[in-house]
Parts: sequence; C-alpha cells; structure tokens
Amino acid sequence: MAGNTFGTVFKITTFGETHGGSVGCIIDGCPAGIALSESDIQQDLNRRRPGQSAITTQRKEMDTVEIHSGVFEGKTTGTPLMLLVKNTDARSQDYEHLKDVFRPSHADYTYFKKYGIRDYRGGGRASARETLARVAAGAVAKKILRDTSGIEIVAFVEQVKNIISAVNIQTVTQGDVENSLVRCPDVIASEKMIKLITEMREAGNSVGGIIRCIIRNTPAGLGEPVFDKLSARLGYAMLSIPAVKGFEIGSGFSGALQTGSEHNDSFDTQNGMVHTKTNNSGGIQGGISNGEVIDMRIAFKPTSTIRKTQNTINIKGETIQLSATGRHDPCVLPRAVPIVEAMAAITIIDYYLLQKIYEHA
Amino acid sequence: MAGNTFGTVFKITTFGETHGGSVGCIIDGCPAGIALSESDIQQDLNRRRPGQSAITTQRKEMDTVEIHSGVFEGKTTGTPLMLLVKNTDARSQDYEHLKDVFRPSHADYTYFKKYGIRDYRGGGRASARETLARVAAGAVAKKILRDTSGIEIVAFVEQVKNIISAVNIQTVTQGDVENSLVRCPDVIASEKMIKLITEMREAGNSVGGIIRCIIRNTPAGLGEPVFDKLSARLGYAMLSIPAVKGFEIGSGFSGALQTGSEHNDSFDTQNGMVHTKTNNSGGIQGGISNGEVIDMRIAFKPTSTIRKTQNTINIKGETIQLSATGRHDPCVLPRAVPIVEAMAAITIIDYYLLQKIYEHA
Amino acid sequence: MAGNTFGTVFKITTFGETHGGSVGCIIDGCPAGIALSESDIQQDLNRRRPGQSAITTQRKEMDTVEIHSGVFEGKTTGTPLMLLVKNTDARSQDYEHLKDVFRPSHADYTYFKKYGIRDYRGGGRASARETLARVAAGAVAKKILRDTSGIEIVAFVEQVKNIISAVNIQTVTQGDVENSLVRCPDVIASEKMIKLITEMREAGNSVGGIIRCIIRNTPAGLGEPVFDKLSARLGYAMLSIPAVKGFEIGSGFSGALQTGSEHNDSFDTQNGMVHTKTNNSGGIQGGISNGEVIDMRIAFKPTSTIRKTQNTINIKGETIQLSATGRHDPCVLPRAVPIVEAMAAITIIDYYLLQKIYEHA
Amino acid sequence: MAGNTFGTVFKITTFGETHGGSVGCIIDGCPAGIALSESDIQQDLNRRRPGQSAITTQRKEMDTVEIHSGVFEGKTTGTPLMLLVKNTDARSQDYEHLKDVFRPSHADYTYFKKYGIRDYRGGGRASARETLARVAAGAVAKKILRDTSGIEIVAFVEQVKNIISAVNIQTVTQGDVENSLVRCPDVIASEKMIKLITEMREAGNSVGGIIRCIIRNTPAGLGEPVFDKLSARLGYAMLSIPAVKGFEIGSGFSGALQTGSEHNDSFDTQNGMVHTKTNNSGGIQGGISNGEVIDMRIAFKPTSTIRKTQNTINIKGETIQLSATGRHDPCVLPRAVPIVEAMAAITIIDYYLLQKIYEHA
Repeated sequence: MAGNTFGTVFKITTFGETHGGSVGCIIDGCPAGIALSESDIQQDLNRRRPGQSAITTQRKEMDTVEIHSGVFEGKTTGTPLMLLVKNTDARSQDYEHLKDVFRPSHADYTYFKKYGIRDYRGGGRASARETLARVAAGAVAKKILRDTSGIEIVAFVEQVKNIISAVNIQTVTQGDVENSLVRCPDVIASEKMIKLITEMREAGNSVGGIIRCIIRNTPAGLGEPVFDKLSARLGYAMLSIPAVKGFEIGSGFSGALQTGSEHNDSFDTQNGMVHTKTNNSGGIQGGISNGEVIDMRIAFKPTSTIRKTQNTINIKGETIQLSATGRHDPCVLPRAVPIVEAMAAITIIDYYLLQKIYEHA
Repeated sequence: MAGNTFGTVFKITTFGETHGGSVGCIIDGCPAGIALSESDIQQDLNRRRPGQSAITTQRKEMDTVEIHSGVFEGKTTGTPLMLLVKNTDARSQDYEHLKDVFRPSHADYTYFKKYGIRDYRGGGRASARETLARVAAGAVAKKILRDTSGIEIVAFVEQVKNIISAVNIQTVTQGDVENSLVRCPDVIASEKMIKLITEMREAGNSVGGIIRCIIRNTPAGLGEPVFDKLSARLGYAMLSIPAVKGFEIGSGFSGALQTGSEHNDSFDTQNGMVHTKTNNSGGIQGGISNGEVIDMRIAFKPTSTIRKTQNTINIKGETIQLSATGRHDPCVLPRAVPIVEAMAAITIIDYYLLQKIYEHA
Repeated sequence: MAGNTFGTVFKITTFGETHGGSVGCIIDGCPAGIALSESDIQQDLNRRRPGQSAITTQRKEMDTVEIHSGVFEGKTTGTPLMLLVKNTDARSQDYEHLKDVFRPSHADYTYFKKYGIRDYRGGGRASARETLARVAAGAVAKKILRDTSGIEIVAFVEQVKNIISAVNIQTVTQGDVENSLVRCPDVIASEKMIKLITEMREAGNSVGGIIRCIIRNTPAGLGEPVFDKLSARLGYAMLSIPAVKGFEIGSGFSGALQTGSEHNDSFDTQNGMVHTKTNNSGGIQGGISNGEVIDMRIAFKPTSTIRKTQNTINIKGETIQLSATGRHDPCVLPRAVPIVEAMAAITIIDYYLLQKIYEHA
Repeated sequence: MAGNTFGTVFKITTFGETHGGSVGCIIDGCPAGIALSESDIQQDLNRRRPGQSAITTQRKEMDTVEIHSGVFEGKTTGTPLMLLVKNTDARSQDYEHLKDVFRPSHADYTYFKKYGIRDYRGGGRASARETLARVAAGAVAKKILRDTSGIEIVAFVEQVKNIISAVNIQTVTQGDVENSLVRCPDVIASEKMIKLITEMREAGNSVGGIIRCIIRNTPAGLGEPVFDKLSARLGYAMLSIPAVKGFEIGSGFSGALQTGSEHNDSFDTQNGMVHTKTNNSGGIQGGISNGEVIDMRIAFKPTSTIRKTQNTINIKGETIQLSATGRHDPCVLPRAVPIVEAMAAITIIDYYLLQKIYEHA
C-alpha cells in the first residue's frame, strides 16, 4: 500500500533516509540453501557507490553492507534477509538552507503536500540513496538466477544526451561494460560521453540519457497474462527508479511507425528449438517470455540538482534564487546501470520462482 | 499472483475468454453510496465495441453489461460489484484451423509454453476482448472521480504510423475526441489517419501509433514514493494493455536529450497557487502528483492479425503459411482510447482513495 | 483490502447478495491441466443447499453452478475460473418489514454503521448464501488436492448444544458423515441431535455446536512461519465463516490445563517414518505441518434468526418487537460441514502450491 | 507470501533470528506527523523482556530499541520505520548439542522438512525472540490509536493451568495488570499462579493458560465483511503467536451450548446511543465492530522447553534422551501479555486507518 515493497514471491521492502541511521531492506521469500555472503552483495554496491570515478559525485561513502539475518553458516535459511548499510557521510548542516525551499523538479514540494512534513536533509527518503537497498537485493536475485538457471542480465549506457552508441546486444558482456568509466561498451561513444559529462560538470549543469538492459537465457513461459505481463512489471520496476521518464520493450515507440507485416516476428525452428527471426517483441509476447532476448530501453532525465542558478519558491510562496553547492552527479546513468540490473533481477526472479508452482502442478 | 487483479484499494479482477460464457470483472473496494446504473458503464463499452465504425473490425457484438451485485436501489453498497458481458458472436468453428498453429507476434506460443494447454479460439484469454472488463471497471472509477473530486481523464489518438497530430492538451475535451472516427481531435490529421487505416485494411495489413492521455485536476500529493510512484503504476497499467510497447511520462524519451537547466520545471505562484512554469515532469515529481496536468504517451504496435500471408510454424515445428480470414482491426488505436482512459482511472482512483487514510490521520 | 478475497496463490474472490442477480466467485491461480466439470462442484453445493433434509431450512434453491471461464475442453487452462449461481428463490417482498430494523446479533446495525446503506433483503451480502461461492471454490481445491497429492479433508458435526459425539478421527470417512442427516457419524449422538434440532425448530428457537475438521496425508513442511503459520491461516479461514465464535488446533483450550511434560509430543520412528506418539500439536509445529493429522475444532453460535419474539430497535432507536416469519435453519451445522471443508481446502492448497516454489529452488 | 508480513495499511515485516545480528521490523504505512521516540517503544519491550521478574527466564537481555528511519525531529514522516534490537546475550555454543536433535513440540523438525536447513541456535527464527519485533510495532500502533482515537487495549492473564481469575473487564486497567508479577489483576488468583509457576520451575516442568484481551472505545463500523471479518483477523493475529492453540471471540466455545434466544444480543438505546444488553457477540457482528467492548480469549500451551528428561529422536531417526539445560520460562503467559496487546493493536489499526477511505468517499 505505502509503496516501499516490490515483488510477491521474492519480496523486498526498503527503508531509510539519506541522513537517518541506515538504509537497507528486508528480502522475504528468498529460497533456502543458497550460498551467500556480504561480498556477493558488496561488489554491486561498489558499482553504485558515489565517488567511484572522476565523472560521478565526489562524495565518499563506502556503503558497506551487513547481513543481519537469514543466513546461517554461509547459506540462506529461507527466513528474511535483512541487509543494512549504515549512513556515514551525513553532513546534515549542509542542508539547513534548503529547509523551506522547494527545489525545481525534486520531490520537496510533493512530499510536503502529501505528508505535511519532510526530512529536507539531502532529499530524505526521496534521495537516490534509497536505491542502494535495491542494488543489494538485486545482487541476491542475480546470484540466485545465475546459479540456478543461467539467466543473465546486462545493462549499459546506450545514449547520453545526443551521443548514441552502437552495441551488439548478442555479444556484449558485463566485462565490456565495466571497462568504460561511463558504462558504455562502445569505446568511441564512451569517450565522447565522458567528455560531455565532464563539460557539464564544469558548467554546473547536468545531462540525461538512455540505459539499455537485456536479459538472456530466460526460458519461454515466464510471466503472467493480463495485468502482470512480464513487460508491464518490468516497466513498473524501471519507472520506479528516480529520474526515469520512459520505458520501451522491443520495438517500443519505433514500433508505432511500422506496419503489421513489418513488425510481426515470424516463428522458425533452429536445431529443433523454436525461435523468432526478428525480435520486435523484445522477448515477450502476450506478457509471457518466448525465450528470445528480453530487450528494454529506459530514459533518464538530466539530474535535477545543478550548480547553475535557478528560480524557485520557498514554503511561503516567495520567489527565490537557488544554486546547489553540494557534490552531485552531472549524469546519473553510470551509477544507475547496477540499479537497472537490480530491478530487472528482482522482477524476473519473482516470475521464475512463481513458475515452479504451475509447471509442477 | 496469477495476474488477473489490478489495484489495492479499488481492486479489479477480470475473467473470461473470448469464446467462453462471458467476460467481466469484480470490483472490490468500491465506496458505498455512489449512484450507479448499467447505462453509466454501457456508454464506455460502446466506445470500445467492435463494429462501431467503418475503420474498426466489422464483428457485431453488442457487449451489453449486467450488474450482478453490489448495487441496491441505484446505489453502490460497498460490497463487490460483479459486472458481466455475455459472449454472443462466438463462432468457434472459425478457429479450428488455428488449433495447432503459433501465429506470429500473438500469445499462442507463450501460453502453450506456460500452461501446456490453450484455448485457441480467438486467442482465448489473450484476446483483447478481455479489455472490455477493464473498460467497464474504468467507467465506474471515472464516474466516482468525476462526481467526488473533479478529476478528469481525456485520451486521444495522437499519432498513427507517421501521421502526427497537433492537439492543445490544455483545452481538448472528450467531445472533441468523439467527433473523430479515429478519435484524433486534430481534424486534418484525423482525416489522414482514416485514409491510411482504410488503405491498410484494403491491403490486408495493419498499423500502429501513439495514444496520449492527460489527467486534469489531480490534487497535489497523490502517489506513493519508492516503488509505487504514480508514474510507475501508470506505466504498469498502460503496459498491461495488449499491443503496448512503450510508455512515457512528461518529457519521456525526449527528456534524455536535454540538460538539467533546460529540463527543470521552475516553481512559481499564480493567484496564490503553486505552479510550475514548464511541465517536463508530466505532473509527477518523486512519484507524487504536483497538481499540474498528468501527461502520458503510450506506443501501440500494429495489430498482429493481418490478412497478408505470413510464414510461421505449427506445434510440430513445421513451417506453414498463414493468412487471417476473420474480421480484424487494421488499427487498434481508436478502440483503445477508452481502454487507456480506464486504466488511468483505475490507477488514479486507488491513490485518490488511499490518500484519505493519511490526510486525516 | 475490502475483504472479499482469500488466498495468495489459489486466490478466490466472492461476490453477490442473496437477492441480487447471482452469487459466485473468481478463482485466480488455479493450475492448468486439471480435469474439471460442473458436476465436480455441484455435488458439494448440494451438500450445502437449503431444503436438503427435514432439519434444514425448507427454502427451495437448486443452486446450479455455471462455469463461465477458465475451462476448455474439460480442463482448466490456468486462467481465472468464474463460477456463478443464479439467484432464483428471491422473495424480496418478504423483507420489506425489516427495512428499518436492526435484528439482534445480525449484521444489520454494523453494515449500516460502516456503509451508511445496506441491502436489507435477506441480509444482503451478510447472508450465509455468500458461502456457496466458498463451497464451489473449495470443491475445486479439494479435487486438485485429492488428484495430485492424496490430501483428504473430512469434517463432521461433533457436538450440538450439549450432545457430544464420539468419533474415531483415524478412520472416519466422508461416507460415514453423509449417512447422517445431521452429518454426525456417531449414530447414537446423531439421533439425539436430530431430535433436539427438531424440538428447537418447533419451539421457534435455534441451537449451536461444534464442527471438527481433520486433514489427512498432509506432507511435513507445509506452512509459513511467523504470521502465516498454517494454524493461524486455518483459524483465519474458519473464523471468517458466519456464526463462528471459536477455533482450536490440536489440544486447543484444554492444552492450557496441561503441563509441558504432559503436552509435549515425543518424536518416534515407525517403519523409518518420523511420527509423534501423541498429537497435541494437531499436526502443526511452529506453524508448519509435521505430517500428522491436522485436527481442528470450530465453535458455531446458535442461528440468530428465530421465530420466538425478541426485543430490538429500529433505525430511529425505538424499541420494537420482532419474530421471524421466514424459513430458517434451526441449526446451521449440518449445512456448514461442506463450508468448513471448503475453507480448509482453500487454505491448504495455497501452501501446497506455494511449497513447490521453495522445494525446487 | 513467505509469511513475515502482517497488515495491509499499517504493514509490519519482521526479521531476525535469536542468534543473528539483530531482530526488528519495518513498519510501512505509518501515518505522518505522529510524535514518536524510542522511549515510547522501550516501555513495552521492557514488559516483554527476559529476566524482568522471578517467574520468567533469567536470561539477561536489555532489548534496547533503535529507530533507524522514518522519524525526523521527533515525528513520523510517513516513510518506513525500521526498528532494530541488537542481539547481545547470544551464547551460540550452548546449542551445539541440539544441532541434530528434533526437540518435542518445537519447530526443529518442521523447519528442517520445509527448508532442508535450519539455524538450530535457540530455535533460530522460530524462537519467541521474534515477538519483540511485534511488541515494538505494537507500541507504535497503540500510541497512534490512543492519541488519535481513544481506542484502548488491555490484556491480562486470566487463567494459569486450572487457576481461574475473576476480573471485571469493564473496569480493569493496565495499571492493575502491571501490579501483578504474573500480570493477573485478581490478587488472590495472582498469588496462586505465582506459586504454581514457581513450583513448576523447580520441578523442571512448565504450564499453560489463557490470556484475555479487551479493546475499548472502538467505534462501530470497523472491519471488513466476508473473509476479513475483524474477528477473523484478530484470530489470525493471535494464532500466529508462538504457543497459541485456541482463540475465542465473545461467547466462544460456550456459545455452542446456548440456544438462539439465550445467545442473541438485544439492541437497546442508552442516552441516545445504540447498545446491546448482553455481549455474546464480543463487540463484533457480521465481522464489523458494533461499538461494544471487543472481548477475546487466547489459549497458550505449556512451554515446550522443560528440564525434565524426555524421549525424542535425532536427525538419523535414533531415539535419544533430552533435558533442557538453558534458562527458560516455566510459563510464557506473563511475558505474552504485551505480545497479545501488540497483535490486537496491529490488527485494529489497519481497520481504523482503512475506514477513513470509505467514510469520506
């Protein structure tokens, strides 16, 4: 109801504000007997961590995860996993001047209207710091999917502003992605993106872009028809990430420009396996996976926090001028890659576990 | 879990296949004391009905709704509403030849892989006929929103293939939309769209497009942060509609091309009311409505059923040729307008009712 | 939220008032490929049907079930089952005099306070007629459990007022139960109960009692710890049946009188199988089944509708006298036996299906 | 699904094992603007704490609560509250000898069968230590109910083994309850109970009993009909507490012995307010509160852990002898009083908040 839970079988509930005691989550419904340690989770947190490279925010937070429950002698027990990261770099006084200000395109005004009260320090609950809990849960989901089913998720930065990369989605690996500071595996585009982001930071401005996410080795038959189509839940998951403004599956918006005879994916058999010759469906038909690569694109707006001076209002309705002084990301996309992967993993594992009910009935 | 329910407070569960006994839904959580009759629902069903104009499928189905429960002496009682439409034009024999065929870009193959069994007549549960239950439920939601809060939803066809309309979203009314056979309120674009759709039907082909949906008079403060952002749930709702491949809120994919200083919506006051000068946020910030117009775009692929001959396979994996003989829509968008409105209404009413919990606590 | 749904994996949602168009339910989450026809359901509805014997209400209702969706060529398809029973014996005019009256120990007053409106005809939604939808859903659940796992549910009337039967729960069969008009398999107690109920009817009074329900062949390991203990969900299910005032599992209230050394169930092995020597736990330990017989007792109050004159008030707060004239059950227990079985089946199948997720993970 | 969450509007999810890092919960859906500090919660934790008196276990655990999120400047913000208690008195080595043993009437065997793995230290997740998270959440719920609505919950020990107290439920206060070491406000019965429990501890045995719980000042109209009757959810909540074997509302099992004319609660008006002359309904009719005192009785079995030697089996199926050496409660009831209150509060607040949706629609 109150929106802090995602999933039905593998259910995660996150908590925490950026300047409270800690940020973390409970995973309820994690299967028993899975080998799991803090290091399995930490490696993805490190990919999301502030200060990891020259083009992200320079805040220093180690974001060290603690597993408080649900693991015994190195294995999950089937009881809730509580994963916690303590807040350390919380300079509350930096935010005193924002106490009565509604920053443009932030959640300050809407939280105030909804709750009548808000923790103004660093955005409180609306801070993207909340996403570290998703990345922690996603790391667990990814490990289970990889260990038990071979399902593999790769996300990368496809576009920053008008710089568009060319990436072969059949062959791209996470290693290719991690080789780029901006997490774009097209080397030439990557360099242009880094240059643009650096310019934006120097100009006190910010920039948006597109992350592409593919899921390989999904068996045919995952998903639920009608409201809980796999595509609908993936869209739901991605649109819940801060700064996301659009979602496409397969042909997406460009599919609207095609005719049926162009767009339809003909079935074929290869080595006795059913395949489609094209993949405009993006791996999902009627809301259920067909075994092809699941292929999504997610649009991110430019970061709302910028150093450039902007007009806005305060709680009394008075117009004021604002220019951010803190350390911020000129482009959220490099750090958002593991968040996208996490949301994909959390969504897909739910269906993967759920399908066991019906395939054995 | 099994995906046939949407919503938490105003919860709808749909049932029915295109060639079974009936199609309909239960609405659980409808407030008591609302005046409601079949005619309130029928008018929206008529907008979705096959055979309503020259550019839709020519199947004749009256789709007459019956209210089986939850209404007493013309008012809702707070108990479940069961809304039912009997299936009448169910020529099952038309589908015998599709029994063992996997039609391209339909759900035949995926249902078969998921369930091991499928009702092949007219797509069974995967038929868009299921959406009449959504339209019926949406009509109830729209009436409650209109009667109790003034929230108004208007959807229209913005684009068919490469024909793009120009519509003033501040002033467009449902009346303007209904004046057009294709439900595009731009008179010139409407005529071009009708011409294109007619050509497509004659060519045995089909075409996709974009529906835009706006929600007016939403109070600031609706939505839940984190996973159940209003934007995320609207995307979830829209992506659950058959044939939808993409969803945007506010600036959407074009927002990825902007810088922060261009994209940020500055706050301002007009007559003592807080407003934003631009609306790249699409009326939602941090997942919560800010009182501006909620503005979405939904991409539909071209109809999968076409008369043109296509290659596909049967259940044995043999390549066969297929050309549809039934009556189908060359473009689903005109009939999808009330479906989009319904999903918007079902999504927004949930938050509207939910907010009553917290604003009075 | 609004309380008309039960279950998570095998989820039922009921609808309907006693004098509306129909009463029925949707089952969402029924596994595909199960053979199912109306007659599988009708046989249990007949056991619940009014007018079935001299000791039940003499209203004549055939309660003929229709399957509207989810079955194709005699098998379930995995899509929602909609089961519907039309209302036929609906003499609305019989109830006109109750329009403004709050009957003692009925739901008239509380529905009025909650909703501000109520369908006063025959109790509306609060009528026990709603339970036919549960019995229909329960028949489906029982069939799946029986066909796929051997789990067997037997309920019987153990006590009517102070007449207590002696029944061997290891050997009692549904056949034994059905041989008795009052559904008590102890022949001597059964005769006494029938005599008492007949006297009560003649006196215009009513009587309560206890139904016992056992579940055999449950594998060890079903249930979820903490809040969703199998025992807690069984209690929840049973306490949702109209007129139920108490629930016990295993030793129940008598367990409060024992010491630990008396009450503990020692483990033992028989033919290599783990067993407990006693069964004070009632087949459930820590909320999870241990493989022993699950053993519950459910207390029913006497029927609230009686012919004897009673004092009560009307909507204006005036004291009035009331004596029921309609046809009513002097004792609900014989007809409640299939309802208890249904709720047991609906509860247990959820865990049975759910366990497949984890045992194969 | 996996059973660690309770509630829909005010939703709690607990985590933690007795020998893991911590035990706690997330509360999602707590209204904003409520004054809340650790001390509001600590006082109830102290009532549940081990070692608080001569008749409870002598383990020393301070159970100090930390609020990690959801509170800003002393008020709730509407975001998730995470409440955490670190584990301190965790002598893991005490349990090494239980590694392969299935203790009688504990959850050792059933957890092993369900999960294939179990944390054997102190019962792991099945330990009653989990209930401290419920007490913490319940303290928040009780405070909100008290501050905003005047709803008051009082639980007390009514019976220990065959010692039955006489308590006036109209007048009893929490102060009266806390004056007794055993939490029985009948002074004479209290002394007998203390004596019996002391004897039991010396004999290495344990004893069960009954807790009664009343809820005052509930407005008429709370509850949801059909499956989510207030009585059904209260039963569900209470039956989820470790060691509970039975639940009664109002007349309960004794209601089965009455006739309708004896049992029916006649309506009356007093000072213009609707009342019932008797309260066999226990304050709930048709699943909805009628404004009378809600009155429940909950049966607890004797503690399973006893010093007396018992036979049981190990994981190989070999019969072994077992006698507990740790510090245990000879009777759980005194410490269970705040747990019962907590579950009552968590259940009732859900309906209290939910009702705001419908009463203002």
